[in-house]
Formats: sequence, C-alpha cells, structure tokens
Amino acid sequence: MWNARAVNFVSLDIHTPSKETARYLRFPLVSRPHTQRSEMNTASFSLQPEVSAPPPERDRFFEAARHRIDAKTKPPGSLGKLETVAVRLAWIQQNLMPQVRRKRICVFAGSHGIAVTGVSAYPPEVTWQMVLNFLDGGAAINVLARHGGIAVHVVDAGVDADWPEPVLARPDFFVRKTRRGTRNFLEDRAMTPAECDAALQAGREQGRLAAANGIHLLGIGDMGIGNTTAASALFAALLGLDARDVVGRGTGVSEAGVDRKARVVAGALRKHAAGAVSPRGWLEAVGGYEIAAMAGTILEAAAHRLPTVIDGFIATAAAAVAFSMEPACREFCFFAHRSDERAHGAVLAALGADPLIDLGMRLGEGTGAALAMHIIDAAAKVMCEMATFESAGVSGPAEIVRK
Amino acid sequence: MWNARAVNFVSLDIHTPSKETARYLRFPLVSRPHTQRSEMNTASFSLQPEVSAPPPERDRFFEAARHRIDAKTKPPGSLGKLETVAVRLAWIQQNLMPQVRRKRICVFAGSHGIAVTGVSAYPPEVTWQMVLNFLDGGAAINVLARHGGIAVHVVDAGVDADWPEPVLARPDFFVRKTRRGTRNFLEDRAMTPAECDAALQAGREQGRLAAANGIHLLGIGDMGIGNTTAASALFAALLGLDARDVVGRGTGVSEAGVDRKARVVAGALRKHAAGAVSPRGWLEAVGGYEIAAMAGTILEAAAHRLPTVIDGFIATAAAAVAFSMEPACREFCFFAHRSDERAHGAVLAALGADPLIDLGMRLGEGTGAALAMHIIDAAAKVMCEMATFESAGVSGPAEIVRK
Repeated sequence: MWNARAVNFVSLDIHTPSKETARYLRFPLVSRPHTQRSEMNTASFSLQPEVSAPPPERDRFFEAARHRIDAKTKPPGSLGKLETVAVRLAWIQQNLMPQVRRKRICVFAGSHGIAVTGVSAYPPEVTWQMVLNFLDGGAAINVLARHGGIAVHVVDAGVDADWPEPVLARPDFFVRKTRRGTRNFLEDRAMTPAECDAALQAGREQGRLAAANGIHLLGIGDMGIGNTTAASALFAALLGLDARDVVGRGTGVSEAGVDRKARVVAGALRKHAAGAVSPRGWLEAVGGYEIAAMAGTILEAAAHRLPTVIDGFIATAAAAVAFSMEPACREFCFFAHRSDERAHGAVLAALGADPLIDLGMRLGEGTGAALAMHIIDAAAKVMCEMATFESAGVSGPAEIVRK
Repeated sequence: MWNARAVNFVSLDIHTPSKETARYLRFPLVSRPHTQRSEMNTASFSLQPEVSAPPPERDRFFEAARHRIDAKTKPPGSLGKLETVAVRLAWIQQNLMPQVRRKRICVFAGSHGIAVTGVSAYPPEVTWQMVLNFLDGGAAINVLARHGGIAVHVVDAGVDADWPEPVLARPDFFVRKTRRGTRNFLEDRAMTPAECDAALQAGREQGRLAAANGIHLLGIGDMGIGNTTAASALFAALLGLDARDVVGRGTGVSEAGVDRKARVVAGALRKHAAGAVSPRGWLEAVGGYEIAAMAGTILEAAAHRLPTVIDGFIATAAAAVAFSMEPACREFCFFAHRSDERAHGAVLAALGADPLIDLGMRLGEGTGAALAMHIIDAAAKVMCEMATFESAGVSGPAEIVRK
C-alpha cells in the first residue's frame, strides 16, 4: 500500500559530473514537477500532508494494528519490542500486513579534513581503501548484509580518491563527490552551502531510489576516518552537550587521543559559534559529506513513508541533523543499536531514541543496522504469519479454568 | 572438525512406550557401549577429557581465534559481542572457521500440576493446544525459526493430552511422555526419580540427535502453562534467592497473581526443604518435565561439544540445574536474551550469564533463542568471511600518518 501514495520528489538537482548524472538517470524514476528548495534553514522543508497525518487517523491505525497483534497466539505484549516495532511499521507502511522483504543498506563514505589532526587511530587513506573493500564484498557490512538478505549500495559522498574504471561501472556504486573531503574545521568551515546541498542531494537520491525500487526497509551507515569527531562536534552543537561528554575512542584511540578529540571539538565550537546559527549551519561548519548525505536519505525516505534504520554514532548525528530540519521524519526512523562509542547513550537519550540491540559494537558501516533489520523483519512476520487464538483453536486468557 | 571428536553417548536408556522407542531407533545413531548413569546426584555425570581440555590448550586456542579476528578489516574489538561469540564458538567447535549453517530449536512441552492453583493467566489446556499450534506452524517460534532458517523439533516431555494419529507420524514431533503432567508440588513431589530420569533422557536424545544430524547450533525453548512458577521455585532453591525475588507476571497475571505465585514458591520451599537436598532433588520436587528435558539436552550437547542457546526464564532454570549437575557444560551455552520476566535479570547475574539481546520478550517457546541464533550465525560469518587488512590492502593502525 505504502508505495502507492505519498511518493513525492522534493528536489532533483544533482550536483555531480555529467557522467554520474547520466548514470543516475538510468534508474526508472518517475519524477514530478518540483520546487527547488534550498534547505538552508531548518524550516525550509516540510513533509506532505499524507506523512503528517492528523492524530485521530494515526491513533485509529495504531489501535487496529495493536488489536491485530493481540489476537496472535501469545500473551499480549509478550513479544516486547517486536510488537511495538510491528505496530509502528504497519503505521509507517499504512499496511496491517507490513512487509520487509526487500531490504537495502546505503553506506555513505566521506573523507574528513579534520583527520589530518590525528583524531583517529587510522590514517585517512583507510576511507577509500575501505570503499574498495565494500565493493569487493570483504567488509563487515558485506558479511552481515549477505547474512540478513540485505542489498548494499555504496555512495562516495566526498572521498579523497579516484576510482578505477571497473569500479565506476558498478551499479551498486554511486560516485556523488563534490569535493575530495571536507576542509579541516579547525581552520575553515568543513563545507560550503553548495557542497552541503550536493551531499544532501546524494542522500536524497538514495531515498528516492529505494522507494522507486520497492525497498521496504532502508538502512544507512557510514565510512569516514575522522567522522566520530565530526559527529561529536555536531552533537555538542545541536544537543547542547559538553565537548568532553560527546567524544569517545572512535576506531580505538588512547585516552590521550580522546582528550585531543575533546579539545578539537571545543575548539570547533568556539570557532564556529558566531557563524553557525542553525542545524544546517552546524552541518556545514563541522559536519561531513557522508553525514549530510545520510541526513538527506532520512528526509527523503520519510517523504516516501519508507522506514529507515539508523546505524550507530555517526548515523545518529545525521538523524539529529535531519530531525532538527524536519521533526516529522523522526516517526519513520528505527534506531538500530546502542554503540559502544561512549557518548552514544547520552545522545540517544537526548533524542528520545530507544535502540533495538546493544552488542557493544562501534564499527559503523551500517553493521548495527544490518542486525537490527533482521529483528524488524521478524516483527513484520509476527504480524503477518502468526496464527490467532481463534484460527489455532487456542484458549485465551478469558477462559481461565481454576479447579 | 568438532563432530569428528568427542562424540560420546553417555546413556541410552529411554523411558518411553515401545512405539516411541521404535521411532527413536529409526534415527541413524551410532552408539557405543555405555555405562548406565543414574544422574541421581550432582556429581554422577562427568564430561569426557576432550571436553574438559586443559587450560593451556584452551588459552592457546582462544589466542589463535582472537588473532584471526583481529586481522579482519575493522578496529580490534569494534564488533563487540560478535567477536567474543565468534571466538567462543571457534573454541567450542574446535574450528577457527566456526559454522552455524544447520540450526535447530527443540521446544519441550510439559503440563504442570501446579497450574490448577491458578498461577497462570491461561488455563492448563493451552499447553497441548500450543503444541498443536507449533506443529501447525502458526506459533511465534515457527515464524521466528522460519525467519532465521532454523528447523524446529517439538518434544512432548509430559503433556496432559492424547495426540491424533496424523500428528504422531510427524518426524519433527517426539512424544516422550512419562506422565500426563507433573504432580501439584504443593501436595507432593512434582515427579518421581524414574520420571525425572525419563525426562532427562528425552532431552539427552535431542542433544544426541542434533550431533548425529550435523547440527551446528542447537536452541532450547519451552511450553508449559504454570512453568514460570516451577522455574521460580527452582531458582529460589538452587540460587538461594527469596521467593518474592524470583516470581513475576509470567503470561500476564495481575499483581495479586504475582503475590499468589510468591506464596506458592515459599510454600513449596518449606514443604520440600527437608527432602530435596541436591539440585537433582529440587528438580524432582518442584521442576517440570520440560525443564528436566532441557537440562538433559544441555548436558548431552556439551558432551558432543555442540553449542546450545538457552532461551529465556524457563530455559535458564534448566541451565541452572544442568550447571549444578555438571559445571563444565556451562562453557557450551550461549544465553539468548534478557527476558521481561521480572526475576530474569537477577537470575542471569547469579549465573554470571550475559545474554545477547534485550527486547522485553517474555514468551518462551525458544523465541529469544531464534533471534539470538541469527547473531551467533553472524559472528561465525564474520570470522569466516571477512577480508583481512592484508588481503584487502587496507592500512592498519600501525601506519598512522600525521601531517
């Protein structure tokens, strides 16, 4: 049901070389006349009426979905979060038989100017090396996505690398690079407004593609050496948290490295406080291209009523940006897991997010999303496939026999 | 590697009617001469030397497995519990390429004499009605097992029902009934020693079958109206916990119902304190046939180095019994999830168990095990399928470039 309605294309301007644009146009997108939107400020984007349904309709739908799941052969509520996920999914998809058959994770990669300051345990070239690993199928996200029956798209949202021709021809690889990495945000704003637009659009394109391809559940993940520091700076700015409370060990830096990250974040906040007055402004000042792109995906997926699974620490930063740009898109997001990155718990609490799993993971790439999507799929199947007390001839709690 | 060694059959006496025995013998078991063991007391069972490997061998194996997973393209430890699970699994299977391809969950059902005292929100006949639901594929465990590519065996370990002929012919249904339900343990001991042996053997049979069938990962789950009360009594007795601290809402009783369960548990402890002096004694006094059977499966699977996934509250009671009978079998168990049943957290802490997921589930049937098995399978695949830094040409943390 869901893909028959609320399919609106908000903006189609793609800031990419003509080659990538041509490739993009190979996809069978049905576009409608659209208004150019700047997304320069938080209030510039608004979802369609179908998305922001009036509360009574929502309440009635939730009640119907809960009624349906309570008829299943189990004590009411005994499947815990599987039940609440199933009910939310039904509402998002506007379908009491929610479907999670077609799953996709988009991994957005970007290089970070801040990486040269030694905020990561790994050198900056690991970003492009890992992109090739994703395309070769050898990374953790490839393993976990195959395991969960999930397709993977890899998006170069701004990686400091040139790609070999064979890789460029891959249908699952999207080179949407505006610049080879952000600027060092201790010296300059990380990106220009035009670059930020381009990165947002690279993400929106994936949301639009997923809807057009009939994807039922879309995950987002990241790759970018240095990006925990960018994410930390965004959390400090958007959620009003102290620099010391938003940094952690990232890929595995020492305690001294964590101190250095805190000083970098504090320095960035001081430097950009005067110039970055909106969430979008902070995204430009201290963000990353892959973070902006993920925010774009969240915003666009919501416009298509497509549920999105937010991976870990970095993807949560993108969610914080997207939610501050358009609060209504929150309803379409599932938080996958509680990252082992120290600040993630506080950040999730500040966002009122309750993730599905907690396995001490801190890798990114969408790995937490891949595992969570199995659980969300399970929830949909509980709703669709379980017998009811009536159909199975099982006595309900009303028929208590006390001898 | 694992199934080529340590395959020992501890005892093959099956206390079942001749029809079931005949069915059991259809399976291609290779038995060895065995010693009859009574399992009447905690120390009567001991694992083979292959299972209780000397610590240095274990340490060397763990080191090799950790070395292998640290070479994968990810920061060391960044996949959290997936990594510790993969390493444990490698050790259990004695294979640095651990396999979780063939998965099975055994759901053990039993009726409980205590159910007539109104400790459950559901009438006792729900136990057999749900067994038919399992066989019909409509229960939550069927849905989640299908979702995870997991086969299901259903074992009648003592259900108060006769089964229709078509159901008896099912190869995935094992009628191993000694008695149609335990006795009300407020009036009598729940089971006789011979019945307890029979139930343990019904569980051991499943451990043996799984090993013979080349199962890589075995889950155990339960069905039995009244069995949270039996499990609570076992926890109080075996772990020295107060009756009030081991009871919860079960299938969904009211607070008054929880009070009633606490009184039942306290009464049972008083009644049997003098007679039940060992874990096995408490199992007979206040346990259930399905709980005894699950303990048997845990013990037997360990003897075959077959990893076992413990579902929720009731399966944890079986684990507590099995661990007290044979501490070495703990090494082969993974705890699936933290149940929403109030006392489960305290019980897991008392057992030093750290479950994989926490989704607020409290259904049993092996539903938590089914979801956890996907995660354990993921861990095995991380170990087997991920590229290494060397194979993928990715720079490691030693090559830090600081400009």
